[in-house]
Amino acid sequence: MLSSMCTEPHPAARRAAERFLATNPGDPASYPAVADLETQAIEYLGEIAGLETPDGYVASGGTEANIQAVRAARNLARDGTSADGESVNVVAPESAHFSFHKAAGLLDVELRLVPTEDGKADLTAVEAAVDEGTALVVGIAGTTEYGRVDPIGELAELARSVGARTHIDAAWGGFLLPFSDHEWTFADAPIDSMTIDPHKVGRAAIPAGGFLVRDRALLDALAVETPYLESASQASLTGTRSGAGVASTVAACEALWPAGYRENYERARANAEWLAGELSERGFPVVEPELPIVAADLPQDLFETLREAGWRISRTGRGELRVVCMPHVTRGTLGRFLADLDSYR
Amino acid sequence: MLSSMCTEPHPAARRAAERFLATNPGDPASYPAVADLETQAIEYLGEIAGLETPDGYVASGGTEANIQAVRAARNLARDGTSADGESVNVVAPESAHFSFHKAAGLLDVELRLVPTEDGKADLTAVEAAVDEGTALVVGIAGTTEYGRVDPIGELAELARSVGARTHIDAAWGGFLLPFSDHEWTFADAPIDSMTIDPHKVGRAAIPAGGFLVRDRALLDALAVETPYLESASQASLTGTRSGAGVASTVAACEALWPAGYRENYERARANAEWLAGELSERGFPVVEPELPIVAADLPQDLFETLREAGWRISRTGRGELRVVCMPHVTRGTLGRFLADLDSYR
Repeated sequence: MLSSMCTEPHPAARRAAERFLATNPGDPASYPAVADLETQAIEYLGEIAGLETPDGYVASGGTEANIQAVRAARNLARDGTSADGESVNVVAPESAHFSFHKAAGLLDVELRLVPTEDGKADLTAVEAAVDEGTALVVGIAGTTEYGRVDPIGELAELARSVGARTHIDAAWGGFLLPFSDHEWTFADAPIDSMTIDPHKVGRAAIPAGGFLVRDRALLDALAVETPYLESASQASLTGTRSGAGVASTVAACEALWPAGYRENYERARANAEWLAGELSERGFPVVEPELPIVAADLPQDLFETLREAGWRISRTGRGELRVVCMPHVTRGTLGRFLADLDSYR
Repeated sequence: MLSSMCTEPHPAARRAAERFLATNPGDPASYPAVADLETQAIEYLGEIAGLETPDGYVASGGTEANIQAVRAARNLARDGTSADGESVNVVAPESAHFSFHKAAGLLDVELRLVPTEDGKADLTAVEAAVDEGTALVVGIAGTTEYGRVDPIGELAELARSVGARTHIDAAWGGFLLPFSDHEWTFADAPIDSMTIDPHKVGRAAIPAGGFLVRDRALLDALAVETPYLESASQASLTGTRSGAGVASTVAACEALWPAGYRENYERARANAEWLAGELSERGFPVVEPELPIVAADLPQDLFETLREAGWRISRTGRGELRVVCMPHVTRGTLGRFLADLDSYR
């Protein structure tokens, strides 16, 4: 399995998930134990993402967290304008995950996609795209296709210049970036919200996405009243939620933050560089990995043959082979993949 | 725990959930085994809900399924009108779950709530509320507060009269109603979509909601393109989804449909009637249970004392005690609850 951004949960995370399978953090007054665990989970995520007094919740995944960021920004932008129901826009690099397209359609906001340079948001294009109707500027810290990190500080500055908020999608990158030199956290730049998913590189069980906000007002902008629950309101997009995801997030972070995640990052980076080198030596054009995703231009019939042979691989939008070096992807697996590739080409 | 609409999963469902914890039906080309299981899950749900060639998917829960119903109806209604972006409305009884309020805010549609009579949608009020801007009429088959079933056939007829679609929320009721005399299925009335949650009375593991549609066009109206996945598009609201929810749905249905669910229904009904009788005998006004939810007017200080004593109980919007007779709620538990109640009053 070389195509997934999910992986085998850590054994402690798996045990915690199994223990909390029948609990619902969406009904905190009925399930107080898992509600307490959620507070711990958000504290861990805050520590990882440079937020001293974090607020947020464990979402169903990155898609929910990204939708919520757009929804909060839209709701607050509308409240601030006199003309009710005025259309707002969201500016994002074209590298943004397809969940932002989903969010825009759902929420009836205009998505302005700007070009990228070497896979990163082109700041001149962002500057040209933002205006007074911009509710949110999106930056990606670890793009889905090439693992690139946008210039977060500059994006946040451009957002501020038009009174917009900034959201960082670190769904996949968030558990790798603390060990890199990138600037991406709440401490590095005046960003407002972040997606950071425990069930990807964090090795929690699915479903465990992370939605973090600097200012509680963003959560308040999402809240609906909850009659027949003993809690008063609910800010999540889903109603019933998975206690397994929450409990396994805490267990994974307890087990792996920070040393285990650092080890995982080093190993993944080494594997990605090795694979990129091997593919390059074989004459396939390779996109240099920045975070551990390898993209390489393979003939389409070779790609198809490898898929038919049982390798779970996927393609970038441009059709390149895309290998995500997740914790379950070992050097041995990559070696066997290359051996198969050699035998078919 | 007397307040939850979730329950302990069936042992077979729990085992299946544990086995599929690390799979993602949101990426079916990477996880084909769980994609096959999802087809089976939808076939079971279709059988239960009277749909011969069912389409749909296993959602994160009833909230997602309800949002998706509103979203599909909105998107299709807009496509059908010449004026782009025209506002549409959704007509629902005031008994509708708060997820419809969430959906309306999210999707920018007007939610027209109509009064109920004895907890059921008042048809005269629905008739007065629908118009050419109505995209969807909602009926509830087992309301969250009192377990009431709306007149589904009549609602669907009123919807048709203005060219609107009909959605039935059977999130909680769907695994009880097959054993009652109510009309609520796709076979009973020309309804278009349904929410029916395996992780409630169906005894699957959280998260397992069910979204069923009669016509695949409703799913198509939700689809977004999915680059870097080997599948072409995705109709779900969330992206990564829980294989545990899908696998445990199949396991629970294999184990319990139909005999086990019937037994569960009979027991729950008997318990609800018994509890209602006992509360009534003690002089507390009781709302006669139709499906196994008991609502009774208790003094608020008695309610609070029982909560402090450790009973997980909740209130209706009118402040009544509300007890949901789920599979884990036994006669013994209810007896102990009454004993505590007697000792405190």
